[in-house]
Amino acid sequence: MLSKNQIKEIQFLHHKKHRDLEKNFIAEGMKFCDELLKSHPVLIKRLYGTESFFSTRQQWLQQSAVPHTVVDDDTLKKISLLDTPNEALAVVHYFSEVPAAVDFSTQFTLYLDDIRDPGNMGTIIRLADWFGMPHIFASRGSCDIYNPKVIQASMGAAMRVRVHYRDLEQVIHAHGITRVFGALLNSPSIYQKSLAAGLIVIGNEGKGISASNLPLVNEPLSIPAAAGNGSESLNAAMATSIIVSEFFRQLRA
Amino acid sequence: MLSKNQIKEIQFLHHKKHRDLEKNFIAEGMKFCDELLKSHPVLIKRLYGTESFFSTRQQWLQQSAVPHTVVDDDTLKKISLLDTPNEALAVVHYFSEVPAAVDFSTQFTLYLDDIRDPGNMGTIIRLADWFGMPHIFASRGSCDIYNPKVIQASMGAAMRVRVHYRDLEQVIHAHGITRVFGALLNSPSIYQKSLAAGLIVIGNEGKGISASNLPLVNEPLSIPAAAGNGSESLNAAMATSIIVSEFFRQLRA
Repeated sequence: MLSKNQIKEIQFLHHKKHRDLEKNFIAEGMKFCDELLKSHPVLIKRLYGTESFFSTRQQWLQQSAVPHTVVDDDTLKKISLLDTPNEALAVVHYFSEVPAAVDFSTQFTLYLDDIRDPGNMGTIIRLADWFGMPHIFASRGSCDIYNPKVIQASMGAAMRVRVHYRDLEQVIHAHGITRVFGALLNSPSIYQKSLAAGLIVIGNEGKGISASNLPLVNEPLSIPAAAGNGSESLNAAMATSIIVSEFFRQLRA
Repeated sequence: MLSKNQIKEIQFLHHKKHRDLEKNFIAEGMKFCDELLKSHPVLIKRLYGTESFFSTRQQWLQQSAVPHTVVDDDTLKKISLLDTPNEALAVVHYFSEVPAAVDFSTQFTLYLDDIRDPGNMGTIIRLADWFGMPHIFASRGSCDIYNPKVIQASMGAAMRVRVHYRDLEQVIHAHGITRVFGALLNSPSIYQKSLAAGLIVIGNEGKGISASNLPLVNEPLSIPAAAGNGSESLNAAMATSIIVSEFFRQLRA
């Protein structure tokens, strides 16, 4: 069982300030915890789970010698951020820093310009994993990758896709990127435009691409809507998936 | 100001049972309320908003004679489901029933097979609006269209896209649909497959297309992943956007 202080220490990790101090974050859910156990056991600081969770995972626990603690449903609820906690929760070490290895002469990847919604951030990371973008970039105003809701929505992809927080200008210069794509009004349709390797800038949910980054976009594109449609825009994550899918189709499918 | 009973009556509408009884639902947020005011004022049973919200909308209120009540921030917080309410909230009449007008010989649309997440449901409705699908279908186990979170995520599109709750078999028979598409493992890539008018079945977030509906899918397709990717799947709404975008590109772009 956990003491009051131990519970508090975990709850602290719901806040970015404490995460950055401890260099630890919380991963919830059986799926994510299973992936950690199987693929990255050394990242786990401690795994908390119900008796039934651990009973079916004895082999992995023995193989990896992961520190773990059995908790009851009430305790799990206290340390979880979910309304209905998911049998397991892990306190995990921050990922180590790695260089952003992208070859922009042949590959494309994303730059997230102030994506603020954790659900959008998490599903975009999952998308990046699916379409083979192990490194993506994000503005410093974008959602924290270690935010529990981002981790949750990424469904494990956060362990495979690295998010590098940099200014757009810095990324372009450091990698000598020549083609900077971005969704802008009155631009060529992605379906007609000939897409190429480069960086794809995804704008903020409400405001789109920031004023300071707009001049850096030199390959404007748009997702055409059906005639007479009423929506002004698509959800940012949905638009990202459509754009990335079309890049994948033209360049790699 | 609102009495305790009036507040309670609005809060009741957070629950499906009461919504169905009253045939009223709650629409939150300035964007949605503005669209209602401009395009569908007769649907509004009563509009609640802060003083500052109403002060800039006097002309519309006079034109449409919409019943409205000024509320303070505390009251708005009580009747809202949002952590940070958005200046306005409307109690709205259920949309009237309309026939599902889809010409399946030339058009494509969606069948949602137990989409359960309100955020997914709402963004899919927004997507349908964008790509010109004013009628979509959903299984009876799918999320309620009048769920406040669906309405919120649809960003107004729920007023333009009608969701018809029917069994898949019933839809196929009633409309004489010959092509039933669905994302299944080991199926032809959407990028290579020649897509056509018909119905696109979107599976549940965790379980995919239900066992009873699987035999009805006669045009299996898949979204190919990059080699060596680690994710088992994409978020249901993201997958939907990729599939619909590809249908749009091949058939209408």
